[in-house]
Amino acid sequence: MDRLEWVVSDNTEDSLGKCIDGARPLDEKAMRQARSRLLSLVKPPGSLGRLEDIAARLAGITGRVRNRLEKPCLLVFCADNGVVEEGVASAPQSVTFSQTINLVKGITGAGVLAKVCGSDMMIVDVGVRGSLPGDGIVSRRLRGGTSNIAHGPAMSREEALAALGVGIEMAGRAAQEGYDVIGLGEMGIGNTTTSAAVLSVLTGADVSVCTGKGAGLDDRAYRRKQETIRHAIALNKPNSGDPVDVLAKVGGFDIAAMTGAYLEAARRRIPVVVDGLISAVAALAAFRMQPASAGMMFASHASMEPGYRIAVETVGLTPCLQLEMRLGEGSGCPLMFTVMQAACAVMCDMGTFAEGRIDDAYMNRLDPETSFSL
Amino acid sequence: MDRLEWVVSDNTEDSLGKCIDGARPLDEKAMRQARSRLLSLVKPPGSLGRLEDIAARLAGITGRVRNRLEKPCLLVFCADNGVVEEGVASAPQSVTFSQTINLVKGITGAGVLAKVCGSDMMIVDVGVRGSLPGDGIVSRRLRGGTSNIAHGPAMSREEALAALGVGIEMAGRAAQEGYDVIGLGEMGIGNTTTSAAVLSVLTGADVSVCTGKGAGLDDRAYRRKQETIRHAIALNKPNSGDPVDVLAKVGGFDIAAMTGAYLEAARRRIPVVVDGLISAVAALAAFRMQPASAGMMFASHASMEPGYRIAVETVGLTPCLQLEMRLGEGSGCPLMFTVMQAACAVMCDMGTFAEGRIDDAYMNRLDPETSFSL
Repeated sequence: MDRLEWVVSDNTEDSLGKCIDGARPLDEKAMRQARSRLLSLVKPPGSLGRLEDIAARLAGITGRVRNRLEKPCLLVFCADNGVVEEGVASAPQSVTFSQTINLVKGITGAGVLAKVCGSDMMIVDVGVRGSLPGDGIVSRRLRGGTSNIAHGPAMSREEALAALGVGIEMAGRAAQEGYDVIGLGEMGIGNTTTSAAVLSVLTGADVSVCTGKGAGLDDRAYRRKQETIRHAIALNKPNSGDPVDVLAKVGGFDIAAMTGAYLEAARRRIPVVVDGLISAVAALAAFRMQPASAGMMFASHASMEPGYRIAVETVGLTPCLQLEMRLGEGSGCPLMFTVMQAACAVMCDMGTFAEGRIDDAYMNRLDPETSFSL
Repeated sequence: MDRLEWVVSDNTEDSLGKCIDGARPLDEKAMRQARSRLLSLVKPPGSLGRLEDIAARLAGITGRVRNRLEKPCLLVFCADNGVVEEGVASAPQSVTFSQTINLVKGITGAGVLAKVCGSDMMIVDVGVRGSLPGDGIVSRRLRGGTSNIAHGPAMSREEALAALGVGIEMAGRAAQEGYDVIGLGEMGIGNTTTSAAVLSVLTGADVSVCTGKGAGLDDRAYRRKQETIRHAIALNKPNSGDPVDVLAKVGGFDIAAMTGAYLEAARRRIPVVVDGLISAVAALAAFRMQPASAGMMFASHASMEPGYRIAVETVGLTPCLQLEMRLGEGSGCPLMFTVMQAACAVMCDMGTFAEGRIDDAYMNRLDPETSFSL
């Protein structure tokens, strides 16, 4: 039976467990071969810095020294969050709905950046409030938004498993469609609140250092956001040792789906770009379920959200772009795809010292000084 | 008389002065219009961070709100430095010669990165030791390398003016060939030594904080490099208030040519990418001659060379990429061209709030909660 169908039809603890158990560590032999080739290229050793690290890690993922990443896709998971009732977001909840449509139209930040960087997009409705048109949106809606975490759990455990299953399915679908690198983004008003809650529970870091001003809160709303998160955690008592429980009690459909996508990317050995706070918190949840999943992850830009750094540092990632972005939507992924393609070009296309004739024999071609034009 | 020819045929203080005086500040009105359009786009205000800053500044450069940057070119200035006699570099001097040829072949780091990012390259010989083949190299050699700054000035003032003239000519040539953004890189064994010397003199910062380990010096050679720079400055007594004197006495043909290119980019209002230590020190020299030139400059990646930060902070630039690169050749420019093209796409292609239908009326389309699939 095809794995994809199987997962979709059976969102149980067992199916999630099988996805998690399918991940394997990086291929150390391929990485050594990659490092060896990097040392042979016409440049001072290590002088291309993190481009070299990326190229080597891609070898560890695919088992091949030379990779290209010719078909990137940005997956955007869209869902609403009941907690917006508490006044924790600067934008009205309806923006999730309208921006999901705008994502399909390609006129959002992520859309134009994907286009300029040659990336496709897959827009997934995991639970947006309102009736979205079908065209261009993969509909996997669980409900029209989670419940308000200030009053009870965001979702049931069964719903959390189903949301994880949506992400597993979508990463699998991307792989089946031939995408060789994916990035994970989201659209969901209120999801910096749920992400901060999940982050605080998973890491033990205080709510105050996990929480930012999102898309633009004033100080009063910012304090309310922190209080809401503290209250939600105290009320729902998520089990920090059980990421599914944390996602169900104080997370969101988007975060849970992204977590599933990271896990499936790890199982299928597809490099996956982590982008922004919500994406990074989902990466952390996946990392907690399967530490090997971190080997497949690459951080794009350093988000301005304070919790972002905590999340990526815990997973062991370092972003490559410093653009002071805080838009979401996976908007940093397309530029990171280009950085990763650049890393591939270094590995595949640079000349070696032998090809570049940098050796002592070449010294003999140096003519004595003869040219004085001034 | 055509300006390009005029500059080439007359490398005098007067011609440099006319280039410097041709620069104008950014167009504040176009920048205000650009900021206004950015505020109308479907995203939280300012959420695309430095992409918005770049897009706004491009408007200030061209006077047009919408820009594209469809034809980028990386200019690489190649020259040797007499100071390598002092054992300040980890690579033999012959590497300048062979890497200049490899640049033309397109097999160096900068070459493959330019290709993957869709950038052309212009390789300029300002004074490489040895007889380079003519094909693919613009020959503007002044001599086969500068004199050893540990024994006397790197070059005469006339040579410095001529090297500045080479850069002015090349930036002008790039403009005439239709390039709408350029980046400045270099190839020259020993040029982190000359750059550190120029940087220390121009800023007053101590040699120890301006000097790094270049392509890979050991501790002993690193101390020798610092001592050599201190000695060269004490011996040649460059006038810190006269950048041409500083370039002539402790600089190099490459740094001087890049300085000229920055000045001409400013005069012609072409956005120009600053890359790495040597490129940044040349940018600083140009900035000291004409502060308005900084308006045209964009910093690519944060070089690992310690002097880099001093140089870009003095000019007022902040790099966008954190890749721990220290290769030179302008290797960070191509990725920065892509970042800048992404900024253009934000300005040109994103929808406005009106187009994206994010307003109160849209709330009415939200259906009551009906979908519970679990």
